[in-house]
Amino acid sequence: MGTPWKSDNWFTSPWNFMDEVSKNYNFAKRIKIHDVSLRDGEQQAGLIFNKDQKIALAEKMAEIGIHRIEAGMPAVSVQDEMAIKELVKRDLGPEIFAFARCMKEDVKRAADCGVKGIIVEIPSSQHMIKYAYKWPLEKAISLSIEATSYAKELGLYTVFFPIDMSRADMNWVLDLIEKVARDGHMDALAVVDTLGGLNPHSVPYLIKKVKERINKPIEVHFHDDFGLGSANTILALAAGADVAHTTISGIGERAGNASYEDVVMSLLTMYNIDLGLDYSKIYETSKFLREISGLNVRQNRGIVGDRIHQIESGIVASWFQNVRDTAPLEVTPYLPKLTGHNNTEIVLGKHSGLPSVDYMLQELGLELDEEKKLLVVQKIKDKAYEKSGLLSRDDFLELVKEFL
Amino acid sequence: MGTPWKSDNWFTSPWNFMDEVSKNYNFAKRIKIHDVSLRDGEQQAGLIFNKDQKIALAEKMAEIGIHRIEAGMPAVSVQDEMAIKELVKRDLGPEIFAFARCMKEDVKRAADCGVKGIIVEIPSSQHMIKYAYKWPLEKAISLSIEATSYAKELGLYTVFFPIDMSRADMNWVLDLIEKVARDGHMDALAVVDTLGGLNPHSVPYLIKKVKERINKPIEVHFHDDFGLGSANTILALAAGADVAHTTISGIGERAGNASYEDVVMSLLTMYNIDLGLDYSKIYETSKFLREISGLNVRQNRGIVGDRIHQIESGIVASWFQNVRDTAPLEVTPYLPKLTGHNNTEIVLGKHSGLPSVDYMLQELGLELDEEKKLLVVQKIKDKAYEKSGLLSRDDFLELVKEFL
Repeated sequence: MGTPWKSDNWFTSPWNFMDEVSKNYNFAKRIKIHDVSLRDGEQQAGLIFNKDQKIALAEKMAEIGIHRIEAGMPAVSVQDEMAIKELVKRDLGPEIFAFARCMKEDVKRAADCGVKGIIVEIPSSQHMIKYAYKWPLEKAISLSIEATSYAKELGLYTVFFPIDMSRADMNWVLDLIEKVARDGHMDALAVVDTLGGLNPHSVPYLIKKVKERINKPIEVHFHDDFGLGSANTILALAAGADVAHTTISGIGERAGNASYEDVVMSLLTMYNIDLGLDYSKIYETSKFLREISGLNVRQNRGIVGDRIHQIESGIVASWFQNVRDTAPLEVTPYLPKLTGHNNTEIVLGKHSGLPSVDYMLQELGLELDEEKKLLVVQKIKDKAYEKSGLLSRDDFLELVKEFL
Repeated sequence: MGTPWKSDNWFTSPWNFMDEVSKNYNFAKRIKIHDVSLRDGEQQAGLIFNKDQKIALAEKMAEIGIHRIEAGMPAVSVQDEMAIKELVKRDLGPEIFAFARCMKEDVKRAADCGVKGIIVEIPSSQHMIKYAYKWPLEKAISLSIEATSYAKELGLYTVFFPIDMSRADMNWVLDLIEKVARDGHMDALAVVDTLGGLNPHSVPYLIKKVKERINKPIEVHFHDDFGLGSANTILALAAGADVAHTTISGIGERAGNASYEDVVMSLLTMYNIDLGLDYSKIYETSKFLREISGLNVRQNRGIVGDRIHQIESGIVASWFQNVRDTAPLEVTPYLPKLTGHNNTEIVLGKHSGLPSVDYMLQELGLELDEEKKLLVVQKIKDKAYEKSGLLSRDDFLELVKEFL
């Protein structure tokens, strides 16, 4: 199989492909990304997209090649309902799904939007049914059967979505799901970690157990309360799950959902699985979402951070100076252009060293002797403390002026 | 063993403690957090801490109970050197380490600061030695032996840090490490994923293989290029690694390091391992770092995000209204106070429903009949679109005025 950890565009770890490691890869033949940015994503406190913004985001996702879009819950607002209908009409490429509570009225409203599929949610842990819904347990079961049967009647691809499944009594919830599959209907089952409380060790076992009992395609819907949403999603896919529910840059209810950026880039560069997406649109799509929503992300957030391809450290700058033309993957796990980022660049700050000064002089077509360069390094550090941040190109020019 | 997934303060998943899952837990008896925020963290492009800020951050870490602080690299700046010396003098609790390139001069400078231990780095993949350093391979080996022996001579606890180990030829790098352990010196080995290219499946196997060959305590230093740094760190600890290199809120070179918040909260709530920290200082410490550095984090970033305990969705608001006094862990995996957050609250936006209005009326000591409440819900949604965000308390008062 060659060296899938190293291509023209990336260089990750050969350990990922050792037999002892890869024998645990049981990926489905065809994996789908089901984006929930427009539904669960928007449930993040303070995040809001109007109809036009939803359509613009869906267009970006279509360009990337995201397979499915959960466009919203018609009951939330008229704007949402109109956005869903408009997305169905435009037929951009991704399958359009809607979200519904487990009630016929919600299912009807979704079907009326013309969507292809529906996510039907019901509380599924006994404690949540009892305390958060104040229902008798039977109600959750009967509503599930009724609503999913109705969804089938209306011709919708039906994904059954048991809220809080990961905290339910295991036999009880698997019995519930089996009953709904038998007496109601489901085309697929979502394994739902509503409160993000699954650890990475439990995920493969959970997926295996569910597959033993429920003979349906498995979708996984994982939250990011402990920063593990993306890793858990990858682990579930490797255990045979078919569909990953994700959002752009991890937006979502409470602590957000798994980020599709992490998932698809990991699959590509660390598992040799290309979902056929246009990866070069990843960065601009995240930036667009942030612009319209006010979402912050770490300047150094993996894959979509604005500064991940900037080098300040003098040590790393020296590597970059040595490899930029011949072996750029020595300083980055994948080339910036793969995700649509600007090229790697050296920036000037407290950690700068001689190679940083060489780089800037080169960029500006200037020359200095070694002794003067050392003085410039010190001046850069002083200036960085003074500014409490990076130097601009003008700052640098100002500093070197006296030495030229 | 009771129900470690559920305590007064948290409620995660029982799947985490199934025998089939927990049989893979081989945690060391005593796990240490080695914080690298002041060194690798500050190497993030644009991040800078002056001496006073470094000391203030170290004080916060000492309050939390972080075991070790890598305080910087004396060669970077005089301010850094002074900060390290000052931290040694203050003896706040955490062990103070310094970082050094594999050269006697750097080791000497670190020792002169009075630190207890040192991290000694050397490039360890043949391609990086060749392309990024332009060295003959032998040079990496001889420098390693020389510098680590010298560190021992100076009485420093010496952690050998092979840069890019995860992308090295596996036998070559293990041979190198064995040679340095034999002919030079190491008290512990850092398993270094410099470019974040290890996937979660490879980590346990890598740790196992390293432990078979190298009979030293294992430290893990993982980067977050694919959003997997924290998960990988947890997987390594579960495979028997002794020390985790982490930063506050994931700051760090390029795409950052594993975040200690994710690691320690996961261990506590999902693995039943309490590192004895003061978890209630976690949120304020992240906020403090952001204030002094200008770091952004997602408003919904797990554990440290400012809005993770705000509820906008009407469905979740209804859960909260039902459980707030009796079963608050139905809406959150752990209580906000555990990490020093404010209590859960309901905020008003596009996703609000009747329970949100009930909550606000209750908070304000007001009453309305059901019909009027429905009108208020619609007005809240309209206002949210108009503001493109959340409503303030005053916005709400303005809206309900006409109905009172």
